[in-house]
Amino acid sequence: MRIGVLTGGGDCPGLNAVIRAVVRKGVTAYGHEFVGFRDGWKGPLEGLTMPLGIQQVRGILPRGGTILGSSRTNLFKIENGVERVKENLAGLGVDALIAIGGEDTLGVATKLSDLGVNVVGVPKTIDNDLNGTDYTFGFDTAVNIAMEAIDRLHTTAESHHRTLIVEVMGRHAGWIALHAGLAGGANVILLPEREFDVDQVAAYVEKRFQHEYAPIVVVAEGAQPLEGQMVLQNQQLDSFGHVRLGGIGQWLAEQLEAKTGKEARTVVLGHIQRGGTPTAFDRVLSTRFGLQAIDAVNEGDFGKMVALRGTDIVRIPLIEGTGELKTVPLERYTEAEVFFGS
Amino acid sequence: MRIGVLTGGGDCPGLNAVIRAVVRKGVTAYGHEFVGFRDGWKGPLEGLTMPLGIQQVRGILPRGGTILGSSRTNLFKIENGVERVKENLAGLGVDALIAIGGEDTLGVATKLSDLGVNVVGVPKTIDNDLNGTDYTFGFDTAVNIAMEAIDRLHTTAESHHRTLIVEVMGRHAGWIALHAGLAGGANVILLPEREFDVDQVAAYVEKRFQHEYAPIVVVAEGAQPLEGQMVLQNQQLDSFGHVRLGGIGQWLAEQLEAKTGKEARTVVLGHIQRGGTPTAFDRVLSTRFGLQAIDAVNEGDFGKMVALRGTDIVRIPLIEGTGELKTVPLERYTEAEVFFGS
Amino acid sequence: MRIGVLTGGGDCPGLNAVIRAVVRKGVTAYGHEFVGFRDGWKGPLEGLTMPLGIQQVRGILPRGGTILGSSRTNLFKIENGVERVKENLAGLGVDALIAIGGEDTLGVATKLSDLGVNVVGVPKTIDNDLNGTDYTFGFDTAVNIAMEAIDRLHTTAESHHRTLIVEVMGRHAGWIALHAGLAGGANVILLPEREFDVDQVAAYVEKRFQHEYAPIVVVAEGAQPLEGQMVLQNQQLDSFGHVRLGGIGQWLAEQLEAKTGKEARTVVLGHIQRGGTPTAFDRVLSTRFGLQAIDAVNEGDFGKMVALRGTDIVRIPLIEGTGELKTVPLERYTEAEVFFGS
Amino acid sequence: MRIGVLTGGGDCPGLNAVIRAVVRKGVTAYGHEFVGFRDGWKGPLEGLTMPLGIQQVRGILPRGGTILGSSRTNLFKIENGVERVKENLAGLGVDALIAIGGEDTLGVATKLSDLGVNVVGVPKTIDNDLNGTDYTFGFDTAVNIAMEAIDRLHTTAESHHRTLIVEVMGRHAGWIALHAGLAGGANVILLPEREFDVDQVAAYVEKRFQHEYAPIVVVAEGAQPLEGQMVLQNQQLDSFGHVRLGGIGQWLAEQLEAKTGKEARTVVLGHIQRGGTPTAFDRVLSTRFGLQAIDAVNEGDFGKMVALRGTDIVRIPLIEGTGELKTVPLERYTEAEVFFGS
Repeated sequence: MRIGVLTGGGDCPGLNAVIRAVVRKGVTAYGHEFVGFRDGWKGPLEGLTMPLGIQQVRGILPRGGTILGSSRTNLFKIENGVERVKENLAGLGVDALIAIGGEDTLGVATKLSDLGVNVVGVPKTIDNDLNGTDYTFGFDTAVNIAMEAIDRLHTTAESHHRTLIVEVMGRHAGWIALHAGLAGGANVILLPEREFDVDQVAAYVEKRFQHEYAPIVVVAEGAQPLEGQMVLQNQQLDSFGHVRLGGIGQWLAEQLEAKTGKEARTVVLGHIQRGGTPTAFDRVLSTRFGLQAIDAVNEGDFGKMVALRGTDIVRIPLIEGTGELKTVPLERYTEAEVFFGS
Repeated sequence: MRIGVLTGGGDCPGLNAVIRAVVRKGVTAYGHEFVGFRDGWKGPLEGLTMPLGIQQVRGILPRGGTILGSSRTNLFKIENGVERVKENLAGLGVDALIAIGGEDTLGVATKLSDLGVNVVGVPKTIDNDLNGTDYTFGFDTAVNIAMEAIDRLHTTAESHHRTLIVEVMGRHAGWIALHAGLAGGANVILLPEREFDVDQVAAYVEKRFQHEYAPIVVVAEGAQPLEGQMVLQNQQLDSFGHVRLGGIGQWLAEQLEAKTGKEARTVVLGHIQRGGTPTAFDRVLSTRFGLQAIDAVNEGDFGKMVALRGTDIVRIPLIEGTGELKTVPLERYTEAEVFFGS
Repeated sequence: MRIGVLTGGGDCPGLNAVIRAVVRKGVTAYGHEFVGFRDGWKGPLEGLTMPLGIQQVRGILPRGGTILGSSRTNLFKIENGVERVKENLAGLGVDALIAIGGEDTLGVATKLSDLGVNVVGVPKTIDNDLNGTDYTFGFDTAVNIAMEAIDRLHTTAESHHRTLIVEVMGRHAGWIALHAGLAGGANVILLPEREFDVDQVAAYVEKRFQHEYAPIVVVAEGAQPLEGQMVLQNQQLDSFGHVRLGGIGQWLAEQLEAKTGKEARTVVLGHIQRGGTPTAFDRVLSTRFGLQAIDAVNEGDFGKMVALRGTDIVRIPLIEGTGELKTVPLERYTEAEVFFGS
Repeated sequence: MRIGVLTGGGDCPGLNAVIRAVVRKGVTAYGHEFVGFRDGWKGPLEGLTMPLGIQQVRGILPRGGTILGSSRTNLFKIENGVERVKENLAGLGVDALIAIGGEDTLGVATKLSDLGVNVVGVPKTIDNDLNGTDYTFGFDTAVNIAMEAIDRLHTTAESHHRTLIVEVMGRHAGWIALHAGLAGGANVILLPEREFDVDQVAAYVEKRFQHEYAPIVVVAEGAQPLEGQMVLQNQQLDSFGHVRLGGIGQWLAEQLEAKTGKEARTVVLGHIQRGGTPTAFDRVLSTRFGLQAIDAVNEGDFGKMVALRGTDIVRIPLIEGTGELKTVPLERYTEAEVFFGS
């Protein structure tokens, strides 16, 4: 059997571990051959391939990034995209595809599957906001990096009697902020799922200073204040229209300085959350995902996505993983509030 | 309500995080008072207490160890142990106990509960071998420490064309060996659950050298070779009868040197696996365990143990957690074998 | 003898290690007594003290920050500042002061010394830009944190064919950028000591992409382009007049995107470079500085600053440490240029 | 010019960084060609070579180990060793050699240089015991790894009221033990340079327990008790005559348990001290060593060794680096004693 592998979307620790497990088991246990497609869907679309065998996957387990490269190319926004992919797969003699990616990548995989392409999906999102799986790989690594940063900031906050704001990833879901905030002992955690009252945040900060300790505020990049509390000024967009580094974090620092009279500083973790070597949790999860994915392909069990349920790796219909986003439920947020301001 | 808290058994990252969550929520959400019992069951047995309030739990979230101290005292092996504990609890006006510990500590808690003491248990074992919960805190930290050691050893193995053997914790269950071995890209993993054939291990090692790579063997301290392959010599016991450091690991190194003619060296990770700051996974898990435990006490839901099921923290009867050991199932071991020797 | 200790200026890993060494040796070897002054020069100025003995310094060696707190108060900008300090020292029976801080703090110490106060200085600057000492503690920690961030960013850069810009500390001296850039394998390093030609930087970036690798640019926050290449827009200042996070880094990203047509992203490490536990190098250096400082005080050798020369800790006149800034010499920069763009 | 490069002796973080710097500057700045010799002196002896150019050194800066492999082959113990090396160098058209290694490797280099071979040496020893240079690369990494282990062990020691003994590398010189012990806050440090009185060690341990804290003892593998206090039993030698893991550490644990009545446990760090990614200090030092070495070759300045003096990289006669061992001077040990037992 000849199998294509691709990785799409944002960088995420564990991608290489998935690729390694797929190839290692496919070759040694089942005698499959592999074709590496470069840069996500752009690979099959434009026939960009690379050799993919035991040699290529040696030593990549601990490495961040993806040896296949990635892109955000969406076939269905490209003329005859699907046809071209089908032709290229046929031309290369590829019998099945393993697509490793997030909502967009798996969304494309789902449609291709409906169109008769043999696809198995592996869920990937650092934000942990994909349905159908308890966790996605990369998330644990991001949370640990953010936690270590928060650990470091506590001492600065206290030595200088300052508020420190840590802006972490999460445009639509606040999982990283919630877990990093809990793990780092943050005094306030702000998520996209719930608009915050900046006066309430200031009150938490004040309370913390009264205890003679300095506050750490963890804010997801997508968190927003209550309607009308913030107008996103142009100056917070760069000349390319991207939200400038420290958009919400910087805004919050200015607000809290004004309201509390205490210095506030913002740290934006940005891309260091998504690069580098994976944690053990992510290496084991991504390895087990890869093994399950190649088993599915080998059994001809297509149109499926691998997923974590408790301690088991299971297969679910692709469509289940790519429905609506898995956001932080209210009870998980309430659970954390007991630590706020104290 | 007046609540006693104790920690028993071996050191484990996350103990302080549990204590902090219990006290923080107990005081701020429910207005409870707390008594800290020192050194496990020895505390209530001998009335050894320490103050336990918001002040005492400040800043302990990231710290390994336990501010309450620990011991392996077993009440039921001490004359009138139970009576003395009941007297002391009554004397101190303690209405309920939160016992944080492993099989022994929770075993005592179970019996006390049957004898009418109000107890809630929090499962703790670095070996992850407690039934009823998907994971225990401390395990993820231990696996990461072992993985980082393995990452470091790869380069030494290859630069010197040597076999490197890493002996990790796990007398009866091989969870740490399995996960650290998978995460570290070990070429052979040996568990207590399954006697190994030292000739098969030597064959894997040979195969790895043929690929021009040096092998890493991860062995749990409790792993044993097939009947008759090893006689544990006295010289592997120290004068206190403890298994000498590098018992099985050292023995294996000698065997592999003899069988392969290639140098073999052993590294015994020992106590560094159980000390120090917890990972994010363990900090979040232990914090959530603590919050659930104090909720249970507050609701008078005694005789229960908190547990992780998927992403939820649930309560189960104490007895369920302290039945037989949760060992590594055969399929998990087989899953890993695809990486052996390659 | 009764000795006051204070820490001034910005947070820096190793401050607590200095305090611990001073107190430990002062008490056990010489029988001195100590007074902790809070928040830098504000302490002696306003008579803000805290107890400082063996108990207070237990366990602080690995902790970042300073148990004494810090501030940027400058006595000589306050009316009767010096008189008030002298009165407070006399009132508290303090015979000598150990001042731990950077150029400002030691500048004050130098003047006080000229005015007859018994002072010994310990140099502290994360930027490593103090004269008279080979290195200052905190610098090695900052460089390691920046290096680890760069290590993580390499994989993201390559997976996404992006330029990644890492903005590190260093307003006037580029030591952190130089060492972190060398250690992290940066493809361009930009320092405050030398205006850069943004077109040359773009050329290096292009060259790197031609090699099929993605570039990492390390830029010190104080680096500036050639005259006329950059106008610092208001939008890069926040409403408090602070340079907005990602000032130069963000500007550079926009320029490089425009000039190379490849995506560029900026990561601003900010305060995580100055908090948290010190590296071994910084713990040993700060401990040895503390031991030498208390020896100097004990011998009545005042008006001195401790310093590292090779592997020795020596004493030099305070004035020598607080003259002009120690910036990166041209030859050190040229030495690094061989790695640029390749 | 055609230049051979080899690495000899034990694994040491930074070897690859030296190789990378040599090749990068040699090719881009001087247009040299390179030949990689495999496995130390065995390479030129047996003509074992590998390609060594820009491609081969890409991405190796952060990697431990050596891409050239290593061995302990000593030419002068092999018949016609020198002649065969000279023939092979001539045959391969190699004009000069860069030898990276410790006392043995550089000792051979020194003799070859006297015999007219163009050699430049780069000092390498994890033990930091080479004369003529302030520090050697690899040492800082080893010290940090040992320090992190000690940090982790503190909490275990205190939670269990145990003595913990950490055995670190250092057969003849105690630099790692001294620096890791200082950095980790050890309560006793034992070096090969000075026989220890086990009763004095027990007294320090007792004193620490009286303070209600648990002691950490850092012992170099080569440390020895006073004459007559220890008889090294056969059972502490394995069947290959190597000192069994935990030789001195294990012996000390048994002694301290017997003398203090408190549990004592030993952790032997072993090879994890010499593998894996280098610290920033070691990456910068090894990179600068490499740049200086290729400059020396380019200038025809042979028979030299590069060395660190303060913040400068200098060249000294090879012979100066390979004279007697640089051991820990008494004053450095005395400096540390103020922390013992407290």
